[in-house]
Amino acid sequence: MPFLRNAWYVAAWSSDVSQTEPLQRTLLGESIVLYRDSLGRPVALANRCPHRFAPMDGGRVRGDALECPYHGLRFDRTGRCVHNPHGDGRIPAAARVASYEVEERYGAVWIWMGEPERVAVTPLPAFDYLDPQENETSTGYLLTRANFQLSADNLLDLSHFQFLHPDTLGSNQMASGTMTFDEVGETVWSRRVCRGEQLQEFVANAYGVPPGMAVDRWLNVRWDVPGLMSIEVGVAPSGIPREFGRMSYSGHFLTPETETSTHYFFAFGLPKAMGEAARTLVEYAVDGLMTPFKEEDLPMLEAQQCALGDQDFWQARPVLLSIDGAAIRARRIMDRKIATEQLEQQARIEQCEAEQGGKTPMPELTAVPIDCSALAR
Amino acid sequence: MPFLRNAWYVAAWSSDVSQTEPLQRTLLGESIVLYRDSLGRPVALANRCPHRFAPMDGGRVRGDALECPYHGLRFDRTGRCVHNPHGDGRIPAAARVASYEVEERYGAVWIWMGEPERVAVTPLPAFDYLDPQENETSTGYLLTRANFQLSADNLLDLSHFQFLHPDTLGSNQMASGTMTFDEVGETVWSRRVCRGEQLQEFVANAYGVPPGMAVDRWLNVRWDVPGLMSIEVGVAPSGIPREFGRMSYSGHFLTPETETSTHYFFAFGLPKAMGEAARTLVEYAVDGLMTPFKEEDLPMLEAQQCALGDQDFWQARPVLLSIDGAAIRARRIMDRKIATEQLEQQARIEQCEAEQGGKTPMPELTAVPIDCSALAR
Amino acid sequence: MPFLRNAWYVAAWSSDVSQTEPLQRTLLGESIVLYRDSLGRPVALANRCPHRFAPMDGGRVRGDALECPYHGLRFDRTGRCVHNPHGDGRIPAAARVASYEVEERYGAVWIWMGEPERVAVTPLPAFDYLDPQENETSTGYLLTRANFQLSADNLLDLSHFQFLHPDTLGSNQMASGTMTFDEVGETVWSRRVCRGEQLQEFVANAYGVPPGMAVDRWLNVRWDVPGLMSIEVGVAPSGIPREFGRMSYSGHFLTPETETSTHYFFAFGLPKAMGEAARTLVEYAVDGLMTPFKEEDLPMLEAQQCALGDQDFWQARPVLLSIDGAAIRARRIMDRKIATEQLEQQARIEQCEAEQGGKTPMPELTAVPIDCSALAR
Repeated sequence: MPFLRNAWYVAAWSSDVSQTEPLQRTLLGESIVLYRDSLGRPVALANRCPHRFAPMDGGRVRGDALECPYHGLRFDRTGRCVHNPHGDGRIPAAARVASYEVEERYGAVWIWMGEPERVAVTPLPAFDYLDPQENETSTGYLLTRANFQLSADNLLDLSHFQFLHPDTLGSNQMASGTMTFDEVGETVWSRRVCRGEQLQEFVANAYGVPPGMAVDRWLNVRWDVPGLMSIEVGVAPSGIPREFGRMSYSGHFLTPETETSTHYFFAFGLPKAMGEAARTLVEYAVDGLMTPFKEEDLPMLEAQQCALGDQDFWQARPVLLSIDGAAIRARRIMDRKIATEQLEQQARIEQCEAEQGGKTPMPELTAVPIDCSALAR
Repeated sequence: MPFLRNAWYVAAWSSDVSQTEPLQRTLLGESIVLYRDSLGRPVALANRCPHRFAPMDGGRVRGDALECPYHGLRFDRTGRCVHNPHGDGRIPAAARVASYEVEERYGAVWIWMGEPERVAVTPLPAFDYLDPQENETSTGYLLTRANFQLSADNLLDLSHFQFLHPDTLGSNQMASGTMTFDEVGETVWSRRVCRGEQLQEFVANAYGVPPGMAVDRWLNVRWDVPGLMSIEVGVAPSGIPREFGRMSYSGHFLTPETETSTHYFFAFGLPKAMGEAARTLVEYAVDGLMTPFKEEDLPMLEAQQCALGDQDFWQARPVLLSIDGAAIRARRIMDRKIATEQLEQQARIEQCEAEQGGKTPMPELTAVPIDCSALAR
Repeated sequence: MPFLRNAWYVAAWSSDVSQTEPLQRTLLGESIVLYRDSLGRPVALANRCPHRFAPMDGGRVRGDALECPYHGLRFDRTGRCVHNPHGDGRIPAAARVASYEVEERYGAVWIWMGEPERVAVTPLPAFDYLDPQENETSTGYLLTRANFQLSADNLLDLSHFQFLHPDTLGSNQMASGTMTFDEVGETVWSRRVCRGEQLQEFVANAYGVPPGMAVDRWLNVRWDVPGLMSIEVGVAPSGIPREFGRMSYSGHFLTPETETSTHYFFAFGLPKAMGEAARTLVEYAVDGLMTPFKEEDLPMLEAQQCALGDQDFWQARPVLLSIDGAAIRARRIMDRKIATEQLEQQARIEQCEAEQGGKTPMPELTAVPIDCSALAR
């Protein structure tokens, strides 16, 4: 399955991109280097020097440019070579690397690896609770060796809490909760209500529920293309309206590293207006979730990927249950958008060929076809 | 080379299959999960939940059924889904996994991964000395990263003792011993007699031979399809008839994990009637053999596999020596049976197509095409 | 890209080939075993016994022959089986392994894996400073997981010292030095002159330059087919003619292990006539270079290989700079010679076919198509 290119992906948390240490990250199968220029603006370039194919993340930031660590060529934020230290210093016209549009929001550096002209018409979904101006936020990151849509499936159906996370997140009332689904434009919602739940200690503490108190829990998951998710959880004493309960808000961003591995970014945010408690709670949530995410979800996702082998999801002919309503809607939206994008690209190629009266090299959307992530780790 | 499917393979030692800890084992390239139901009967299922492809060996045994660890579907010994904890609890008709015939004998769980109707006409060869009712037994297991027939070759020609195991099993008289071969139906025998041998200390102790005493040693190896071997060794003071010597009996069961890796099960047995000595001797044998098997045979088998690379045995055009008589007979029986099985399957496919007047999907003999063993370890 | 077979390659340093411990080394993708016969002469054989494909480097040297560790067949320096310990001891005619011409010079064992009749017309280039009769020498070895021509590129353009080795070998004056190139027959020269350099401490010490003294440095690199290089460096106080400076001499031999890995042999030599200082200096050079070679060059070469992926060098369309003059010349010579060799082989095959009136099996240049190096390590 090709990647959807005309979409925003999280490339890194803002705090991981610096002026001093260029960051290598394989995104959509391409090795990318991220750094900040002298104004602090993030830059994303294809991470392969066109001279001798050296990865540039080992180089130094020189003013606004990144210097290749092998022979010292320097490239600016547009990917143009701006300095050749050798001989007469002439810069060959071909000395360029691909550069990518980036945007910094919600504490993250977002990257656009599709057609530049579509950036303007593709807004980010809102994750206002992660806006660092107004909120205390805490972030987590995991690399998962599984296709990113398996992670989306996982998050769109939280009934697995009961079986995969029985000691932290789940309860015996999860599977019997009610689920509803919604599809609004290209946004998918999954909503679950569990009544009369006995929460596990980790969750109870997060919402200030005393031991033994039965509660109602609402879990609303919002999914947007390509894998940008918001999870809102409300907890209130059983029978009390939701408005009187406590809420948590988290963003979950899935970026394909390769077809079978995923950068999983997640973050909690609460208003600074809550004072000290906001910071305490968002850190409690991220720190506490790291264990079940890493020790229960991650092995499960990797085992699914392994069981799939060379098959894609539909080829493996999954048996569908009622709980899969949101995941299936999200997958179908992605399937449709990828198919459209492939057709459009094919049409452009044919138009080029017609104009030029013959076969032409395919316009390259991709910059660096090689996944060096195995070596980088 | 395809696997021979209409044959009994050892899936596990009986003691490794339990009601509490489902066991994952890749057999003939398929991931299988083994557990015991509430009556203690072993169950073998394809280890991939049809809902989201989760491996089920991480799940719990619930009564007679196995519960998937991801979303809690439960499957019984026939592979049928018997419980869906979600929504209205309806069970989709497609919610099934492949199940396999199993039989418990000689201290092992045997699995049949071929056509069910052939089970009844395929008896197990006898390994009476491993019947746990009558015998003290001790078992060993090694995973060998080489094709299982390389292990059969190894065991069918014990002349390698002199070169590969000079300090434990071999002697200078091994290579000069006499060898004879027999083929009776689909059973192959290799018989070696070594006269006037000075045994290494490890072997001498096993047979109660005092230091320095010259002995005669008989080594009889029996092979049955697909790689079920019995080794009978007799030792007597040189010139004394075999009837007055001491004997040992061991079973060696080779089950392909994949085309290039093998579950090697081996066990020694002696009659309980021998008293305490039986237990002492069978444990001495298994414990003592583990070292040469693991440190000498196993690296050699893996080096052979590596040297073969993508070639199969015959493509590599082996030079044949007199000592290869039994190994070659066994290989030819296997080649013939596999070829026959493939032809029969092809004929069935063609018949199906003829009946249905067109191409039909190939009847699936295999349940789980994916080898997850790499991840499982 | 096929390997150039009609060429001398270093197989091992002389000191690594012994009568007691056969040495496995994968060369040009083939597993080779090296040992010395009873006269101390090196022997190179294909490392795969024709009986059961056991690698023979685990065996013992018996007089002039090498004994297979599995079943004891013995092979002499011509590859002929000379002993079968089994049965009547008859030796099948097919029991042979490929053997290779070897030559011992400059402290190394050289191997010829091409057509035997071309040995005589293919002299080694001179590395007189490594002749152990006249010189103190010190040797180093690294395995690099990158194509050997990337290493040649690296050595033919030392301008990378400034960027990749700024704290040991480089200086700010390197990139601005002057470079000239020469191609004489199939020998390529790259000559660099840097004036007014402030040497790093490691280099300054090697040439006895006091701290702070500005010097001129000459770096002359000679390349011969297939990757045999000599580097001559001269250092003199700035403005003083080269004849009054100090020199160092090193040989650098690149032997493909596989298409994407390289045995890198390097050695320094100085005349014994220099007395104690010669030994001190050659050891200082090899020991000191090991760190930048291993920690800076080697990761860079491997990252280049990774970035290339399945592309070969030209497919990746490198941007050429003035500094690449020598590397490109050397690559073109190799490309030409490999193409010629392939055409000649094709012509021989066609001639055979014509003579025999039909298709014949391709004459095998290669002995062991399987790379066992992964396992060997």
